[in-house]
Amino acid sequence: MDQITIFSPATVANVSCGFDSLGLALNGKGDKMIFSKREDKQLIITKIEGANLPYNIDDNLVGTVIKAMLQKLDLQLGLDIEIYKGFKPGSGLGSSAASAAGTAYAINELLGKPFSKIELIQFAMLGEEAACGSQIADNVSAALFGGFVLIRSYDPLEIVSLPVPDDLYITALHPQIEIKTEDARNVLPKDIPLKSAITQWSNVGGLISGLYSNDYDLISRSLQDVIVEPVRKKLIPHFDLVKNAALQSGALGAGISGAGPTIFALSKGKKTAKTVEESMQEAYSNTEIEFYTFTSEISVDGVKTIT
Amino acid sequence: MDQITIFSPATVANVSCGFDSLGLALNGKGDKMIFSKREDKQLIITKIEGANLPYNIDDNLVGTVIKAMLQKLDLQLGLDIEIYKGFKPGSGLGSSAASAAGTAYAINELLGKPFSKIELIQFAMLGEEAACGSQIADNVSAALFGGFVLIRSYDPLEIVSLPVPDDLYITALHPQIEIKTEDARNVLPKDIPLKSAITQWSNVGGLISGLYSNDYDLISRSLQDVIVEPVRKKLIPHFDLVKNAALQSGALGAGISGAGPTIFALSKGKKTAKTVEESMQEAYSNTEIEFYTFTSEISVDGVKTIT
Repeated sequence: MDQITIFSPATVANVSCGFDSLGLALNGKGDKMIFSKREDKQLIITKIEGANLPYNIDDNLVGTVIKAMLQKLDLQLGLDIEIYKGFKPGSGLGSSAASAAGTAYAINELLGKPFSKIELIQFAMLGEEAACGSQIADNVSAALFGGFVLIRSYDPLEIVSLPVPDDLYITALHPQIEIKTEDARNVLPKDIPLKSAITQWSNVGGLISGLYSNDYDLISRSLQDVIVEPVRKKLIPHFDLVKNAALQSGALGAGISGAGPTIFALSKGKKTAKTVEESMQEAYSNTEIEFYTFTSEISVDGVKTIT
Repeated sequence: MDQITIFSPATVANVSCGFDSLGLALNGKGDKMIFSKREDKQLIITKIEGANLPYNIDDNLVGTVIKAMLQKLDLQLGLDIEIYKGFKPGSGLGSSAASAAGTAYAINELLGKPFSKIELIQFAMLGEEAACGSQIADNVSAALFGGFVLIRSYDPLEIVSLPVPDDLYITALHPQIEIKTEDARNVLPKDIPLKSAITQWSNVGGLISGLYSNDYDLISRSLQDVIVEPVRKKLIPHFDLVKNAALQSGALGAGISGAGPTIFALSKGKKTAKTVEESMQEAYSNTEIEFYTFTSEISVDGVKTIT
């Protein structure tokens, strides 16, 4: 195999109650990447569209991921790399994770699949670290596994693939503002009341039960975050307005996608999801902030080969 | 119906990672209770075997539960009540919950089932409050629903019935010491690190996934409690000794049953559970404290009519 074109999905981490523990992958949003073998052993980013990211391979997380993989195998490989970002960095939709997971997947395919999925996640986490400063697993795991994932443990890393009800759709509204990862982390409490933690893990339990049993009402009741959303939503102008609009128009739940600023909503059925999208648009159109919205199925595949 | 005889199971609350959120019911351990209608409208406890509990109906939680149910319906009813405790109060196996849940179930049957299961739990919680000072739902929910339950929410009360893998067995060791509920509550931290909470809810997610997917290894890896067990185990002499003995002889996991002092272990298969029981016995036989052990299937039924 001399060339591979892949699609790597946008992802929603946390999913309300599951802070640093749950993630899901989107079908309708993501990056396209093309990796073509070169005669020499150079790694060259030849094209980046859709975002202002560094071409220098040493400054781009794509380079970090490839080099770690090649080093592990004591291999050299020359590649031309084209990156077509389907969504912007800083959205809270796992932009760096999409690039990192897509790269790990593609290189593994080009090399004849020497690595396991868990190893690919670990390589992609190095890319996350290069981009965001810490080895977060939720977005890259969702991107690589597809569907709904649970990060059961970081040490050792263990990902549980959760079932995805057929009729579950996601709507997102991305306000065109920047939230610094540092700010999003700084508002987090170091300690939390045990009582809140119990509420949270009961909801994680309810959400996962709902996914296994196709119980949309249970999913809906469980999509509550009493710990992170109350402090992070202050960084997102008009969050409550959009969330309430989504819930009032039939969404199962709504919350902050990852560290924000994107606001996501889950709905049963495409029709409801579209109504929810319109309501979220309407709510935000009264504000001074630019935004875009989209509705997507949940990606069952995760990163995949296009050609 | 003039008389009913019921079995109400012992229960394990918390189940390691699910503090105040998970519970399960045992098949092999529980109370027998007989309720017989009287001509007059008196409630009389005519027999209590197996524990030293008050005969005065106003001092026994059984009376609290019955009166609340009758008051709700604006009814009067005379009953002779016999209570055969299959295990002692203060064990951490839900002794008061068994009496409370058994009573709520039996009275509902005698009256022609006017109440829903959730209402029965709420009545039984009044019994828990009378006995322990707070309206805890985990033991009574497990007793009334049977199997594995998740208390998804207290307000409004919502119980999720979780699947129970066929081959799951529970072993328990009850050291004959008393832990005051007050002491067990006092050692709990008011606040906990967010990081520990994330570990805990990831394990709750893993445990519930394991129950749905029959994945015993996942169940095993998820049976960890980084929050309550580390502080409560200090109240249970030789806890680590017994836990390690259980794990080393093949248990999937082990922990404190409810507020203790009973130590429980979960195993795959009866044979392993019996080996685990022997190892736990052996570990504790070197101590100066009296104890007993038993192995049980998980009760799928919960409280049930015997005759």
